[in-house]
Amino acid sequence: MKLQTILEHLEKQGIDVEFLGDSSHQVSQVSGLSEASPEHISFLSDTKRMGELEASQAGAVILKPEHRDITSTNRLLVSNPYYVYALTAQLLNPLNLEPGIHRKAVIDPSATIGESVSIGPNAVIGANVSIGDGVSIGAGTVIESGAQIGHRSYLAPNVTVMHDCVIGDDVRMESGCVIGGEGFGFANEKGEWHHIPQIGRVVIGDRVYIGNNSTINRGAINDTVIESNCIIDCLVQIGHNVKLGYGTAIASQAGIAGSTEIGQYCVLAGQAGVTGHVTIADQSHFGAKSGVTGHIREAGSYSGFPAVPTAEWQRTMVRMKGLTKMAQKVKRLESELEEIKSQLENN
Amino acid sequence: MKLQTILEHLEKQGIDVEFLGDSSHQVSQVSGLSEASPEHISFLSDTKRMGELEASQAGAVILKPEHRDITSTNRLLVSNPYYVYALTAQLLNPLNLEPGIHRKAVIDPSATIGESVSIGPNAVIGANVSIGDGVSIGAGTVIESGAQIGHRSYLAPNVTVMHDCVIGDDVRMESGCVIGGEGFGFANEKGEWHHIPQIGRVVIGDRVYIGNNSTINRGAINDTVIESNCIIDCLVQIGHNVKLGYGTAIASQAGIAGSTEIGQYCVLAGQAGVTGHVTIADQSHFGAKSGVTGHIREAGSYSGFPAVPTAEWQRTMVRMKGLTKMAQKVKRLESELEEIKSQLENN
Amino acid sequence: MKLQTILEHLEKQGIDVEFLGDSSHQVSQVSGLSEASPEHISFLSDTKRMGELEASQAGAVILKPEHRDITSTNRLLVSNPYYVYALTAQLLNPLNLEPGIHRKAVIDPSATIGESVSIGPNAVIGANVSIGDGVSIGAGTVIESGAQIGHRSYLAPNVTVMHDCVIGDDVRMESGCVIGGEGFGFANEKGEWHHIPQIGRVVIGDRVYIGNNSTINRGAINDTVIESNCIIDCLVQIGHNVKLGYGTAIASQAGIAGSTEIGQYCVLAGQAGVTGHVTIADQSHFGAKSGVTGHIREAGSYSGFPAVPTAEWQRTMVRMKGLTKMAQKVKRLESELEEIKSQLENN
Repeated sequence: MKLQTILEHLEKQGIDVEFLGDSSHQVSQVSGLSEASPEHISFLSDTKRMGELEASQAGAVILKPEHRDITSTNRLLVSNPYYVYALTAQLLNPLNLEPGIHRKAVIDPSATIGESVSIGPNAVIGANVSIGDGVSIGAGTVIESGAQIGHRSYLAPNVTVMHDCVIGDDVRMESGCVIGGEGFGFANEKGEWHHIPQIGRVVIGDRVYIGNNSTINRGAINDTVIESNCIIDCLVQIGHNVKLGYGTAIASQAGIAGSTEIGQYCVLAGQAGVTGHVTIADQSHFGAKSGVTGHIREAGSYSGFPAVPTAEWQRTMVRMKGLTKMAQKVKRLESELEEIKSQLENN
Repeated sequence: MKLQTILEHLEKQGIDVEFLGDSSHQVSQVSGLSEASPEHISFLSDTKRMGELEASQAGAVILKPEHRDITSTNRLLVSNPYYVYALTAQLLNPLNLEPGIHRKAVIDPSATIGESVSIGPNAVIGANVSIGDGVSIGAGTVIESGAQIGHRSYLAPNVTVMHDCVIGDDVRMESGCVIGGEGFGFANEKGEWHHIPQIGRVVIGDRVYIGNNSTINRGAINDTVIESNCIIDCLVQIGHNVKLGYGTAIASQAGIAGSTEIGQYCVLAGQAGVTGHVTIADQSHFGAKSGVTGHIREAGSYSGFPAVPTAEWQRTMVRMKGLTKMAQKVKRLESELEEIKSQLENN
Repeated sequence: MKLQTILEHLEKQGIDVEFLGDSSHQVSQVSGLSEASPEHISFLSDTKRMGELEASQAGAVILKPEHRDITSTNRLLVSNPYYVYALTAQLLNPLNLEPGIHRKAVIDPSATIGESVSIGPNAVIGANVSIGDGVSIGAGTVIESGAQIGHRSYLAPNVTVMHDCVIGDDVRMESGCVIGGEGFGFANEKGEWHHIPQIGRVVIGDRVYIGNNSTINRGAINDTVIESNCIIDCLVQIGHNVKLGYGTAIASQAGIAGSTEIGQYCVLAGQAGVTGHVTIADQSHFGAKSGVTGHIREAGSYSGFPAVPTAEWQRTMVRMKGLTKMAQKVKRLESELEEIKSQLENN
């Protein structure tokens, strides 16, 4: 692909690019700076990699205007190189899914299938399911009755969407994720567990990403809601009636217990956990392995278990490292005090 | 459904109900107090919600006898409202699975299939499998050779049951769970890992619930055993040769390492872990993110890592928060002592 | 099977065995010492079980030369009994998979299938996939286009291998695992998440084991690499561009964030986590629930969060338990000091 084609694509996306070099140069793929050859386009977003840029064989580089003079290769100067790299990589790597319904897919006659849809072998589409235009559904994926899938969404192989759940447009769901499994709702009577049918749904907005083997449970009465622009990594658990605010990101193996409401633009790092029935303020960030045990009223960075403001947690960690020294000090104080006491008694 | 029908159903279940109101009133669904309209039946189990009860539009409410005068709507007075709510929700939301074997299911001719069984498209039933009456098996679910499924059990789509495992009656298994995968058993010889064939099975009792993407490994030699009335949330790992006692509940993302025996009526909260080869007393409760590193001999509540009695853990957490203050105190003591020493020397 | 047959098999594997007893004795299965009957072969590797050995009904026992006189049953004396037990169990429990492609498997005509391959019902093999000799692919397993599976590898039911990934020889992949799902790569522009196509692959060596529902993400640009002889338990997450060195073992629910390089012969215990973009020295061992927040330069045992050398972590844990005592000491010191001060003033 000519750099000119990339530049035109970026312009259509509203990107402000200053280009230096030969726009007729051809690139075929993105690459890291150090592995790149002339048919690759690369990027510099981290100044630590400036040495790699100087030595790079890349045919073109996306970088910030202030780094324009570090290289003399073809340059795209933009304010957010990593974002422009993402757009370029998307352009060079379209999902090559031929529309068409595989003859081994099992589709209920009452389902509504949009235009230009790709459905893989052994996919199962239940009664009254609605599938938007340009949707891709992988092999072995099961969509139960009454579920709705918005336009251009991609469901990898072996995904499960349970009955009546609603998936927005441009959603990407990776293999093994399960949307709309029963919430963990039981009443206990004399030691016996009685299951409470979960009659809510999962409702997912637009441009949401859900990683491998993550599980989002359906609501007990009302719906579990994932707002648009949320990204969820692998092996994440989201309990029944959780609400995830717009733009929130959740890293791998984190979990959110039932009925908790997470605000907008929050971040949970890996293996973090949030207890049930709490409310988390917009723009709250939680460190890896943190455990949130109560409401979070203010935006900020939180860490540890129970989670506290990160600065406080770091101080506590430093104090913990110093415990042995402190114990020694206390011991010395005790013996010195004993000495003084005996000295005073002898006076 | 008339309230009268619900009352008769509850009576058959042995529930003692005092009813106040019009039993010919019709309700179609359960609902939360604040969202309910006259065609809904709701419940009050938490006194914090009494304000919601007063304002509720619910056509009927399940509540404790002592709250009979808070509302004048149709009332079912019972000792455990949440339990009666569960039974009512089950009655109003039966699993609507039409019996029948989908023509795209793959069933080995040697399998034994009970009465009124529902088997979805692309389900695979292996040789010598035995399926009880009233069982439902979802699309894409695989049951390997020799496995047994008890009566009325429900297997969601894309479940996997490995060879020779035994599942009891009225078990509910959610999508993506895997029963009877190999245990993690390897012998190491000069740095090379040698797999040990896991010849035990997984044996699951009656009325067990297993959530999405949870994994229960088969035994190395003897069986992994899940006793009846256990409930297991999503993304839970249960290692080989584990025994889970009657009525135990395990929340999401918790894990139990191999050969550990958990007693009856235990609770593991989210992201908790129990090490291998230990025995846990009946009625032991473990807090979120706790890590159990040894035997637990006495019923009680345990928290932290390594897990200790919760009261002790809470005291330690308070002490940790106070570390900075303590360090300041020690520093002050040191300087005061120095002063006293110099004072004594100068005398 | 006659013990003689087992002895001949072990000799072929290069094992040095001294046999005492009747090699014409027949055994049919392995067993634990206490459950064994004469048709079983058992082993003693842990001296704690010597009492069980004395009482055992086993028809033969594998044990160390120094324990030769504890029993008079048929004995195989070897330097590593657990390893020899593994080889014996493998011999007595071969995978009984009849070669053959099920008529309900869906195989793209461009795929290359080796000799003596077993492919289950509803397995899906994509375009240009290459499958080695003696491979077994379970029901419902999906292998996307361009992927390569080495000789004698076993894929359980409902596994997913995404496009272009490379799996070595003698690999064992358990149900629900997903190889080559998208890595969690997004560029953020003004609060909107933009997905970065992950163009790397997952490349897995020989003799690798991957447990149920584990997820190994494909690389962003370069590949995610799992070297030979690695073993990975259930529900493990391995992020994009991670490199796992030869012989490394990862227990259940552990996670490794993107671009981290783990050395050879490392061990991660259950629920451990390693942050992204760090390098871990060969032969580093990490305790359960540990959290590694930086590079690890030296082999050794590490624990806690943030992970520190295990001895240091244990000291800190002891100090934490002693915090209440230390606080009491400090309080006593304060009051004693006050007393001394007033005494001095009164002088």
